[in-house]
Amino acid sequence: MSVYTKNGTVIMENLPSVVSFGTAVGRMEGEGPLGSCFDYVDDSPDFGESTWEKAESRLQQLAFGQALSKGGLSESDIDFMFAGDLLNQCAASGYGMRDNGVSFFGLYGACSTMAESLALAAIFADNGIGQYTAAVTSSHFCSAERQFRFPENYGGQRTPTSQWTATASGCAILGAHYEAPYIKAVTVGNITDMGIKDANNMGAAMAPAAYATLKCHFAAAHSSPADYDLILTGDLGYVGSELLRDLFLQDGITLGDSYNDCGLMLFDREKQDVHAGGSGCGCSAAVLCGHILPRMRKGELRNVLFTATGALMSTTLVQQGESIPAIAHCVHITASDGR
Amino acid sequence: MSVYTKNGTVIMENLPSVVSFGTAVGRMEGEGPLGSCFDYVDDSPDFGESTWEKAESRLQQLAFGQALSKGGLSESDIDFMFAGDLLNQCAASGYGMRDNGVSFFGLYGACSTMAESLALAAIFADNGIGQYTAAVTSSHFCSAERQFRFPENYGGQRTPTSQWTATASGCAILGAHYEAPYIKAVTVGNITDMGIKDANNMGAAMAPAAYATLKCHFAAAHSSPADYDLILTGDLGYVGSELLRDLFLQDGITLGDSYNDCGLMLFDREKQDVHAGGSGCGCSAAVLCGHILPRMRKGELRNVLFTATGALMSTTLVQQGESIPAIAHCVHITASDGR
Repeated sequence: MSVYTKNGTVIMENLPSVVSFGTAVGRMEGEGPLGSCFDYVDDSPDFGESTWEKAESRLQQLAFGQALSKGGLSESDIDFMFAGDLLNQCAASGYGMRDNGVSFFGLYGACSTMAESLALAAIFADNGIGQYTAAVTSSHFCSAERQFRFPENYGGQRTPTSQWTATASGCAILGAHYEAPYIKAVTVGNITDMGIKDANNMGAAMAPAAYATLKCHFAAAHSSPADYDLILTGDLGYVGSELLRDLFLQDGITLGDSYNDCGLMLFDREKQDVHAGGSGCGCSAAVLCGHILPRMRKGELRNVLFTATGALMSTTLVQQGESIPAIAHCVHITASDGR
Repeated sequence: MSVYTKNGTVIMENLPSVVSFGTAVGRMEGEGPLGSCFDYVDDSPDFGESTWEKAESRLQQLAFGQALSKGGLSESDIDFMFAGDLLNQCAASGYGMRDNGVSFFGLYGACSTMAESLALAAIFADNGIGQYTAAVTSSHFCSAERQFRFPENYGGQRTPTSQWTATASGCAILGAHYEAPYIKAVTVGNITDMGIKDANNMGAAMAPAAYATLKCHFAAAHSSPADYDLILTGDLGYVGSELLRDLFLQDGITLGDSYNDCGLMLFDREKQDVHAGGSGCGCSAAVLCGHILPRMRKGELRNVLFTATGALMSTTLVQQGESIPAIAHCVHITASDGR
């Protein structure tokens, strides 16, 4: 039975295992520094579908399918699925996961969704609620651009602080196996709003949320940054990552080389035109499931603090002059079973 | 520790108690048959705010505040909150619940959200993950109309099968008390899509989901409709409710007088111009938290199967010719502690 230790932190008693994981990405992600890590790369942004939204549903199906087949599992083995995405009405998940017969929890955590879904899947698995639970999320550059900003064809200019929504999906399947990596603890964040109103600077809006959640986690776990091989934020990008380092520096804490950001890892900012870095639910999901979890399985990383951040920005409320609420959840993944 | 019994059903071992509940509604809901049940009725649809979206955030804050004060609790007593709504990016929750310091899980289950949030809050409470957990959701007629259909001022005609989105919010707070009502079991549905494409007939899209989830629940709980004082669907409205009765009749099961629908209870269809009935996340939330839970506390109802249904329809994908995926989750609430 999981143990709750105040301020959103839940310690796993049985250390649920990440038994399988899968990814699917677009061409640009396939051409990035982590390109060779992904299970499926499609050269065409439409993934064989007639619209961007349907393409994103397909992406999610592909990542789920890869996670199932790599784990030797079928849909009927999955007892609960936690899924979400950036589309209005979370359509990539709602349409992509229909008719697969899996009990479904729809989530909205913007780009924090991979950590939110992983946290819930871990808590269910740790308490024996279902044999296998799945966490899946996605984003698609073209569906996100036309929903949040302008249709692709418009050719709008992007500001230097803006990030590039990844065309990517990742899925992790959890269960009570004795096989690394394991989920050791999760910290569920609360909504932080520091008054940032620039919808093209989501890194700045999200950095304070990542800072708040990480601080809660360190306090609850009696740990410090030095206890982790890697502290990995979701998609703060260049601007948000620097802000996060600054926020910790004000407390006299240096995040150092063990800190990185999925938005800075997925693309090569020198060669790929992504401005402040990658973003989108699929960014952290694909980096986690394509790059981090395999390295943990190989023993190259032993303790990772995966901290996905979400800007809970509403397009309507931003137009009404409102600021951007943000949230971050963190998941401590370990290669050590502690037994 | 909760017990999982396949097909999405989780049986609570410790029977978490619904320790408090609160509601806030608009004028039309206040003038309906259940008007006297609600904690807060505002004559003005803007709830003192400058936009419909901000009004909906305010609604959610009011319901949460009522639940807290009636339970003698403060925000700092709530360890986890599960919240969602119909707005794009779940903005009523994301903006309404910011800066309250409560660890936050954002959900999207369309009109099924009250059952989804209640199911997760119950599972957390049953497993001792947090002392108090809250489930809250809302909808607002004006914010929903302009997002899903037309702005209010347009004066669009409504079809006979269309439903009226309730301006309402409900919040339930769960904890490990020994005080009725209790949550006994939940059944988490999967996404069902029977090919309905008429976005003005969501009752028809959702009825098969309610049928599927209820059947799973009866099988897992070894129960039949006769075991419940009330089987309550979320907002199938007149069309969907009749379809649900028909679906069960085909199995030789008569739902009978113990079946009702929140969408048919919130408004008086004879006197109020709501066509097929009420809908929206707030409809089932307000009927549950304003009418049903108080009756259970008084002992007037002993076993209620609360089954909220959601049309996971995307406005974009419906325009692309897609059908409407639907989902239903059910929560068995009991007045008996079984001890």
